Amino acid sequence: MTVLEKMGQNAKAAARTLAVAGAEKDRALTQIAKALLEHQEEILEANRIDLQNGKEAGLTPSLLDRLALSPARLEGMAEGVRQIVALPDPVGKVLDGMVRPNGLRITKVRTPLGVIGIIYEARPNVTVDAAALCLKSGNAVILRGGKEAIHSNLCLAKVMRSALEAAGLPADSVQLVEDTTRRSSLELMGLTEYLDVLIPRGGAGLIRAVVENSHVPVIETGAGNCHVYVDAFADLDMAANIIYNAKTSRPSVCNAIETILIHEAVAEEALPKIRDRLQEKQVQLRGCERTRQILGSSVIPATEEDWATEYLDYILAVRVVKSLDEAVEHISRYSSGHSECIVTRDYKNAKEFTARIDSAAVYVNASTRFTDGGEFGLGAEIGISTQKLHARGPMGLNELTSVKFILEGDGQIR
Amino acid sequence: MTVLEKMGQNAKAAARTLAVAGAEKDRALTQIAKALLEHQEEILEANRIDLQNGKEAGLTPSLLDRLALSPARLEGMAEGVRQIVALPDPVGKVLDGMVRPNGLRITKVRTPLGVIGIIYEARPNVTVDAAALCLKSGNAVILRGGKEAIHSNLCLAKVMRSALEAAGLPADSVQLVEDTTRRSSLELMGLTEYLDVLIPRGGAGLIRAVVENSHVPVIETGAGNCHVYVDAFADLDMAANIIYNAKTSRPSVCNAIETILIHEAVAEEALPKIRDRLQEKQVQLRGCERTRQILGSSVIPATEEDWATEYLDYILAVRVVKSLDEAVEHISRYSSGHSECIVTRDYKNAKEFTARIDSAAVYVNASTRFTDGGEFGLGAEIGISTQKLHARGPMGLNELTSVKFILEGDGQIR
Repeated sequence: MTVLEKMGQNAKAAARTLAVAGAEKDRALTQIAKALLEHQEEILEANRIDLQNGKEAGLTPSLLDRLALSPARLEGMAEGVRQIVALPDPVGKVLDGMVRPNGLRITKVRTPLGVIGIIYEARPNVTVDAAALCLKSGNAVILRGGKEAIHSNLCLAKVMRSALEAAGLPADSVQLVEDTTRRSSLELMGLTEYLDVLIPRGGAGLIRAVVENSHVPVIETGAGNCHVYVDAFADLDMAANIIYNAKTSRPSVCNAIETILIHEAVAEEALPKIRDRLQEKQVQLRGCERTRQILGSSVIPATEEDWATEYLDYILAVRVVKSLDEAVEHISRYSSGHSECIVTRDYKNAKEFTARIDSAAVYVNASTRFTDGGEFGLGAEIGISTQKLHARGPMGLNELTSVKFILEGDGQIR
Repeated sequence: MTVLEKMGQNAKAAARTLAVAGAEKDRALTQIAKALLEHQEEILEANRIDLQNGKEAGLTPSLLDRLALSPARLEGMAEGVRQIVALPDPVGKVLDGMVRPNGLRITKVRTPLGVIGIIYEARPNVTVDAAALCLKSGNAVILRGGKEAIHSNLCLAKVMRSALEAAGLPADSVQLVEDTTRRSSLELMGLTEYLDVLIPRGGAGLIRAVVENSHVPVIETGAGNCHVYVDAFADLDMAANIIYNAKTSRPSVCNAIETILIHEAVAEEALPKIRDRLQEKQVQLRGCERTRQILGSSVIPATEEDWATEYLDYILAVRVVKSLDEAVEHISRYSSGHSECIVTRDYKNAKEFTARIDSAAVYVNASTRFTDGGEFGLGAEIGISTQKLHARGPMGLNELTSVKFILEGDGQIR
């Protein structure tokens, strides 16, 4: 039995205890929030090793920033855990029920998924966030973080495991894979006997690798090639404002936009307005031929590849389209199914866009930056699902559960 | 582009039309039900070729029976389609909604999954059932049936495609793969660009092969290693009656039981009663040591393999256990997560069993044979999911859908 198989077995055993745990889960989470602050020095010390190693390995400043912990960031993590305590327990919730003509009483209730694997990259805060969400929803979790954060992650896992034990729950509810080589990821993707689901959190490369290689069911998160379509009947100032916000308020996140489509009837008036707003942040434009006719040849010509790219940067692709139809065609072809927006004053076009666009979130006249569990009012999220099976859009506690049917009879036979 | 890729592309195009179709879907289904009867001669003729080939290939009588169509069976298929017409359209249903403090109005609505692949075996009725359920839920379907039924399936698909066109929907809403070699199954499992989900329907071997090889998300159906646990506080006549029904009313189906667990306190009284009932149908017993002490050495000794086997036959494994705990342990270890039952008069034990057993359907005092979409009152089903992601238990129209969030604003930015 390999180390990971053993972890899988331990997780399964822990999951059976967690599945019937009630208030203990909240007690353990409260304990975890406390322990993160009590063990602050130890955690920051481990984090300093990761940061030192990261500098020596030549990590970029932005990666080092993601990796770095501080008293304020630890307090933020603890506060995140406390917020999860405050959410209602999803497990046991009755979703449906009926009494059949033969007297059989059927109740459909929420249950935990069981054992969840999370594969992620450099951010140690995912270690705590993900563990807390899994725990609250009654699931055991196996965490496999990036090598850059391994010392921080090991320390955080140790602190959480002690807190679990102190609260009377199995330490193996939360386990961290120590091996951060590619081998452990691949083995995790094949652990069908023990894992109920695998959730990759990170860049497009990581997610693609997991989707392509995993035999454990995967929930795909994150990649966002998002669009704003400026309709012939748009309020052009609103359009420029939404585009500016959706591109520049935080370009590195999945709900930022990457391409805008402008109806040809308003392109000449809209494009200069939009360009002027985006110039405040030096956004580079890559445009179709018509865009370059209007804005001039300083706009870089867009290639086929641009339409498909999630820049996550101050770059925006621009295309002039002949119709709403052409906009829908473009989005259907290139979108990753995350978030798209139409800016329009026309009722019919708004309805048609929301009906025909097949993405997790479809907006009329608002920035795509709202695609987020907190902004939707759904509480903390473990990611944004861009697949259609099981969960779509922000995934919170409910999306970390399954259901079962309980049937109560008095001797019914068929 | 391969034949299957082309089919995938056509299916995707059809799915976009289906996603916004309303009453046309019911018109097409009504047309299909009519066409099945109008083309009866043609279909039965094609079926005769399959039956002739099957006989020559030495298919068993039970397989030939599954393959055979008749006017009565065609009428049954048409009636099944009409029943699907009568069900409410799941697409567009509003599942949740809220207005956020910033005025953004969020609506969560059901959408089709998109393109569904179905891999199945010899029964031509699946061709029509599955197509009708996919169509009603707004999905395009690619059907890949077994080679034994290929002539029947091609004819059924042709009839359905004509009916779709007559009703103004794309013929490519329903496509059948002509190549019935292993190659086409494998290619289908890799068609991630076009298929949103793959559903295998058939025996355990087929399902395992799909789960292990598919890169398209799979919904696992069917395998049922189901248990009845006779508690120390059981009504023993009720127990014998439920066991008799759950084993013998239709042994070849997934909700039939394969193992019974008997509390040692009642084993001496219960086992002879149960054996006597089962002898009416010559059920072969395979027992643990204690069972054989009680019932005699005519009971075949059960091996480790017996606990894990879905016999689908007049065979039943029997084990005496020391406690409810041991019964739960046994089920957790060997069950396929389909349906399990406790027979008891004890309130606490009933509650504990339903809380701790992690299967799609958990029964108190009723036959496991009720695990079925129709028996649950959920309408026609495409299978029983034994996995925890996306759908669990009987899968009807709702389980063939996803959701999307529609967000309506008036210029909100973040």
